Amino acid sequence: MLRVSIVGASGYTGGELLRLVLDHPQLQVHQVTSRRYVGQYVYQIHPNLRKRTRLKFTTPEALEPVDVLFLALPHGEAQKNIERWAELATYIVDLSADFRLRDPAAYERWYGQPHAAPAWLSKFVYGLPELHRQDLRGARFISGVGCNATATILALWPALQAGLVDTQRPIIADIKVGSSEGGASPNPGSHHPERANVVRTYAPFGHRHTAEVMQELGLTDVHLTMTSVDMVRGAMATVHAWTHPGVTEKDLWRAYRQAVNENPFLRLVKERRGIYRVPDPKILAGSNYADLGFALDEAHGHLVAMAAIDNLMKGAAGSALQSLNVALGWEETLGLTFPGLHPI
Amino acid sequence: MLRVSIVGASGYTGGELLRLVLDHPQLQVHQVTSRRYVGQYVYQIHPNLRKRTRLKFTTPEALEPVDVLFLALPHGEAQKNIERWAELATYIVDLSADFRLRDPAAYERWYGQPHAAPAWLSKFVYGLPELHRQDLRGARFISGVGCNATATILALWPALQAGLVDTQRPIIADIKVGSSEGGASPNPGSHHPERANVVRTYAPFGHRHTAEVMQELGLTDVHLTMTSVDMVRGAMATVHAWTHPGVTEKDLWRAYRQAVNENPFLRLVKERRGIYRVPDPKILAGSNYADLGFALDEAHGHLVAMAAIDNLMKGAAGSALQSLNVALGWEETLGLTFPGLHPI
Amino acid sequence: MLRVSIVGASGYTGGELLRLVLDHPQLQVHQVTSRRYVGQYVYQIHPNLRKRTRLKFTTPEALEPVDVLFLALPHGEAQKNIERWAELATYIVDLSADFRLRDPAAYERWYGQPHAAPAWLSKFVYGLPELHRQDLRGARFISGVGCNATATILALWPALQAGLVDTQRPIIADIKVGSSEGGASPNPGSHHPERANVVRTYAPFGHRHTAEVMQELGLTDVHLTMTSVDMVRGAMATVHAWTHPGVTEKDLWRAYRQAVNENPFLRLVKERRGIYRVPDPKILAGSNYADLGFALDEAHGHLVAMAAIDNLMKGAAGSALQSLNVALGWEETLGLTFPGLHPI
Amino acid sequence: MLRVSIVGASGYTGGELLRLVLDHPQLQVHQVTSRRYVGQYVYQIHPNLRKRTRLKFTTPEALEPVDVLFLALPHGEAQKNIERWAELATYIVDLSADFRLRDPAAYERWYGQPHAAPAWLSKFVYGLPELHRQDLRGARFISGVGCNATATILALWPALQAGLVDTQRPIIADIKVGSSEGGASPNPGSHHPERANVVRTYAPFGHRHTAEVMQELGLTDVHLTMTSVDMVRGAMATVHAWTHPGVTEKDLWRAYRQAVNENPFLRLVKERRGIYRVPDPKILAGSNYADLGFALDEAHGHLVAMAAIDNLMKGAAGSALQSLNVALGWEETLGLTFPGLHPI
Repeated sequence: MLRVSIVGASGYTGGELLRLVLDHPQLQVHQVTSRRYVGQYVYQIHPNLRKRTRLKFTTPEALEPVDVLFLALPHGEAQKNIERWAELATYIVDLSADFRLRDPAAYERWYGQPHAAPAWLSKFVYGLPELHRQDLRGARFISGVGCNATATILALWPALQAGLVDTQRPIIADIKVGSSEGGASPNPGSHHPERANVVRTYAPFGHRHTAEVMQELGLTDVHLTMTSVDMVRGAMATVHAWTHPGVTEKDLWRAYRQAVNENPFLRLVKERRGIYRVPDPKILAGSNYADLGFALDEAHGHLVAMAAIDNLMKGAAGSALQSLNVALGWEETLGLTFPGLHPI
Repeated sequence: MLRVSIVGASGYTGGELLRLVLDHPQLQVHQVTSRRYVGQYVYQIHPNLRKRTRLKFTTPEALEPVDVLFLALPHGEAQKNIERWAELATYIVDLSADFRLRDPAAYERWYGQPHAAPAWLSKFVYGLPELHRQDLRGARFISGVGCNATATILALWPALQAGLVDTQRPIIADIKVGSSEGGASPNPGSHHPERANVVRTYAPFGHRHTAEVMQELGLTDVHLTMTSVDMVRGAMATVHAWTHPGVTEKDLWRAYRQAVNENPFLRLVKERRGIYRVPDPKILAGSNYADLGFALDEAHGHLVAMAAIDNLMKGAAGSALQSLNVALGWEETLGLTFPGLHPI
Repeated sequence: MLRVSIVGASGYTGGELLRLVLDHPQLQVHQVTSRRYVGQYVYQIHPNLRKRTRLKFTTPEALEPVDVLFLALPHGEAQKNIERWAELATYIVDLSADFRLRDPAAYERWYGQPHAAPAWLSKFVYGLPELHRQDLRGARFISGVGCNATATILALWPALQAGLVDTQRPIIADIKVGSSEGGASPNPGSHHPERANVVRTYAPFGHRHTAEVMQELGLTDVHLTMTSVDMVRGAMATVHAWTHPGVTEKDLWRAYRQAVNENPFLRLVKERRGIYRVPDPKILAGSNYADLGFALDEAHGHLVAMAAIDNLMKGAAGSALQSLNVALGWEETLGLTFPGLHPI
Repeated sequence: MLRVSIVGASGYTGGELLRLVLDHPQLQVHQVTSRRYVGQYVYQIHPNLRKRTRLKFTTPEALEPVDVLFLALPHGEAQKNIERWAELATYIVDLSADFRLRDPAAYERWYGQPHAAPAWLSKFVYGLPELHRQDLRGARFISGVGCNATATILALWPALQAGLVDTQRPIIADIKVGSSEGGASPNPGSHHPERANVVRTYAPFGHRHTAEVMQELGLTDVHLTMTSVDMVRGAMATVHAWTHPGVTEKDLWRAYRQAVNENPFLRLVKERRGIYRVPDPKILAGSNYADLGFALDEAHGHLVAMAAIDNLMKGAAGSALQSLNVALGWEETLGLTFPGLHPI
C-alpha cells in the first residue's frame, strides 16, 4: 500500500481523485488539503463520500511526506512550489495545466505569462497512457491532461496514427461540455437560472487546450470551438478533418479497431441499429472510458471523428490515476473499473 | 396611455414586469432602475428584450413622477421609503413581501423584525384578483403575492370556498419549485453543477409564504414544505387536505368548475386520457394561467388539490399586472394573453 | 379578417401555427385537421391552448374553402394532393420539405424518390423573408423552411452577402438541436430515459437540410453535422468558414449590422461582458427572433458564424407566418411579437 | 463462485443487476434472457457494458440450472411459472411485485386480479435487509422491493421503530421520481418533448406501492402521492407524519442515528451548513445508499421524514443483491461499494 495525499481536494477534480483513491486496492489516503474548508469533513463538500471517510481537510503547510502526491490546484499554483512538492513525495501527479506543455514559449503564448519553473517542464510526462504508455513506466512526474484536449486527441489519434488524415488542411474540433468543467467556484454565468438550458459557444476559438492538441498530435492547423450545454459531467468532441484521397471507411475501421484493441479504456461505438450508435457522454458519468466513433463522407473526404468522455474522469482524475498505475507497473485498470450507468 | 416606472428592474421579477409592460397596450415605460447596472441597456441583463427597447437602467434617485410605480426590490426595502414612493405615483404596486400581511404582529413573527411602516399595511390590497377583485377596483396600493402562496391558495381555494374541506385537520402543501424563485443573485447552492438535477427539500417547514396562505384562506393549521427541482420557472403545489364526511368528487367538480368559470386565468385540468391530465408548470412558462386540478380518495376523504403556475408570472409579475388592470377598470387580461408553449 | 385552416394540426409545427394564428389580429381559424385525433379538442393535444379555443380536430376530407391553408403534414404528403389543396385556398403555405427545393433532381437525390408534382416546385417561394422578401410579396404559394437550414443560412448569410467568405473552401455547420425537431411521434430513441442528457451526433453528414443550404446560399461545399442535446426547443448553428485574405472583424461587424438593421427578426449578439455574449436558443422559446453572432480568428481566417433560433418558430411556424404577412402586404411582425423569456 | 442467470435482462432493473453481478467478486453471470433482443449483445441495449461482456441475450426457454436466478420480468409474469423457476436454481430473487405482499387478498385488492401462486407468497422474504436481515439469512426465495415503497419505508422506519410517530393520524408520502421508474418501454407520455421539464402528479393516490408500505410498517392510514420530475434516476420521499406529544428533535436524532449506525447503506444527512444539508437523489446515481433526513416542527408535532435513493439501486437491483449477500452469509456490502458521484 502506497500512501497518497491530495492537494486541493475540495475542487471537483480533487474530489473525484479522492473517490478513486479511496477505492483503489493499492493506495491509501493520508492527507487532503483545502485552505477554504480546513477542519471540515470532506463529506461536507463531497457528499457522495459520507460514510466512506472521516478525513478532514488540512492546510497544505501540514503536509507530511508520502509516496504519491496529487496536486489539484488552480492553474498556475503548482509550478510556484514544485521544488517543495517534489521533496514531499516520490511520485508527483499534477492535474493542473502547469506541466502539460513541453515548450516554455508555448506555455507563455497560451497562458499569458512566463512559466515559473521552465526547467521542470521536460521532467513531466503527459499523462495520457494511450499516447505515452512507454514514457510513463517508471515516471516520477506525471502531468494531468486537459479534458477538451483529451477528447479531441483521442477522437482523431487513431486516424492520424494510421496516416489517413491530411494534416495540411485545417482540423476543427467542435466540443460540447458540461458545467463541471468550469470548476467548483461560482461565477455569474454559472447561476442555475442562467446556466440551465444553454447552448452557449463561449469560446469560438483560442481555447488553451488547443496547445495540448497541437503538441500531442503534432498539428499546427487545429481549431477548438467550445460550446456549453445543459449537463454537469461530460465532454463530447466532434472533430472535422479531411482524409487523404482514396481513404475509405474500411481504412478507418481498421485504424480505430486497432486503437481500441490496444487500449483498455478506449471503446469504438459505431452501430447500425439501436439507440446508442455513436459515442455519448451521457452513459460515461463516473467511467474512465473514452468512447470513440467516426463517420466518413467518402464523396468529400470529410471525416467526422468523435470522442465522448467524462471530463472529470478520463478528462482529469481517471487518466491521472491510470497514468500512475502505469508508472508503478500495476494493472492499468486498477481502481478504475466502474463502467458507467444505463440509463442515466 | 399611463406612464410606468419599475424600481429594481434588473431582478427576475422586475425583468418579467418590464417585458409585460412593454407589450401592454395602455402602458408606457418611463424609467427602470437598478443600482448595480446603472447606465447599462436593459437588454444586456434581460437578453430577451434586445431590439425591444433601448432603455437604460437609472438610479432610484433619478425617478420622476409617473402614473404607476412598480416596486421590485428585495424584501424589506420598499417599506423603508414607502412615503417617498407614494409621492412619486398615483398607483403603487409592490412586488416584495413588505405589504402582503395585514397584521404587523404576523409580519414581525414571520419576518423576524418589526415592520417599518405598519400604518401602511392596511392601505394595501393583496394582489390576487381571484380573491380580491372587488377590493382591487380603484385601489391605489397593491401588494404583490408570494409565488408559493399563490399556488397553494389557488389549489385549495375553490374547495374551501365551497365548504368542502375540514379546516380542523392539518393541511399540507408540498410544493416543487424552480431555481428562478431564488432570484438573480447567485449563492453557493445555485452554482449549476450543484443545483442541476436536485430534488432538494430545502424548507421542510416554516416557509414565510405560509403566513400569506393563513391570512388569505383563514387557516391556522397549514404547513408548506418546499422542494427544489431541476427547472428554472415554475411552481407546483400538491396540497393534501381532508374533506368533510360525505363530500364526493362531484361536489369538487362543481366547486372547481365554478372557480374557473368566474376567473379568466384559472383553468381546470382533469382529464381521463392524453398526456396532460393534471396541472403541470411545464407548459406555463410566460403564461399567467394557474392550472388547477384535484383528486379525491373518497374512501379516506383525502383531497389532493393541485395548482401549477409560472412563479414569475401568476406568482409575481403577471398577478401584479392583472391586479393593476382591475384597479384601473381595464379588461383584466390586457397584456397578459400569451398562452404558454407546447412542447417546451 | 382572413379565414385560415391548418392541415396536420396535431403535430408540433401545426400546434405552434395554431397558437400564432389564434393571436393574429388579421387571421381567424376556421378548421384544423388531424386524422389521429378527430373529434378531440385541440387543447387535449396542445394543452397550452386550453381556454383559448373550443375547436376540435376534423378530417382533411371535411375541409372547406378558406383564404389561407397551412399544410403541416409529414414530408411527402403535401405533394401528393397539391392540386386539391390549391383549389381549397387562395394562399397555400406548406411547412413540410415538399416544396423547398427548386430542382426536381436535387429533390430526388436528397429525398430518395422522384417528386410527385415537380411542375409545382417552381411556383413556390422559399419562405425565408430575409432572403426572399421581394419574391414573397403577393406570392400565393409559400414553402416553409427547414429549421437546421434556417439556422445555418442565417448564421452565414450576412458574411456571404458581403463577399467576405471564401466559398472555395469547405464550410462546416455543427448544429445542436432539441428533441422537438424529431416531431410528435415517439421513436425508441425519444424515450425520456434514453433521450435525456444526451450529446448525440446522430447525423455526422448527409442531413437533408444540407440541400436547402446549398440552394439558398449557392454553396456546393457545405456540410451539416447534427447533434442532439438535452433541450426541447432550439437549434444552434455553429458554422465554420474561412474568410478571404485580409478580411477583418470590422468587415464582419459591418456585414452583420447591416443584416440585423434591415430585418426585424434578426438580432446581433456580440457582447464583451455580461452573461449573454453570444447567441443562445435558451432565451428564444416562443420567439421568432434569430440571434446571430460571429467570431473571427484573424490569424487563420477562421470565421465562426452563429445563429440561434427556436426551431418551431423561426425554424418553422414563425417564418411561415412571417412570410404570409409579407405575401399579404401586412406588417411583417404582425402576430409575432412575443420576445421570449428570461430566465428560462 | 456461484453461477447466476438473469431473466428479463434487457429492462432497466435487469441491466442494473447485470452491471452489479459482473463486478461482484463471488458471482459469475451464466445466461441473460430477453425475448425481444434474442441473439443481440447485451451491450447493444446496455451501452455502459460494452467491453465488459460479450454475453448475448438468450430465450427464457434456453435457461440452464444455476445457483441463483434473478427474475426481472414485468409484473405478473414471475408468478405464472414460479414452479419452473424454482427448479432451475437454488436461490430465486424476483424483482417484480409478484411476491412482495404476504396476503393474497391484499395482492388481489391492489393488483386487480387473484394471485396465480398464492401458496408461494409466504415462502418469500421481502428483500429489504434493514427490516428483514434475520429472515434473509439462509432464505432461498427473496422478493425485490418497490422503489417508492423503499423510499417511504426507510424515511419513516427509524421514527416508527422508536415509537415516536402517532400512527392513528394519517401519514402522507409525497414522492418525486425520475423517468426510469416507468421502465424501458416507451409510452406516449415518455416521449422526450412531453416528458422533459415536467412536474406531473400522475398518481395523487392509490399507487400500488402503498400496499408494501402498509405491510412493512404495519400502517393502515398511509397515502402515497407520486409526482414525476425531470430526472432519469432517483426517488425522493418527503413523508409527512405527526409525532406523539412531547417528542423532540433530540428523540429523532437518537432514532435516526441508531438506524444509520446499524445499517451499512443508510446515511443520515442533516447539516446546518453547506450545500447538501438534506437527502438528495442527485448524488446517488449508481449508489446503494439510502440517504435519510428529518425535520420536526415541534410546535405542531409535524415530522417531515425524508429518504433519497437511486430507484434502480436501493429501490431495485441494489437491495436485491444486498439481500442475496445476506442470504448467502456474505459481507452485506459485497459488490455494492460504488459511492455515487459529485458533482453530477
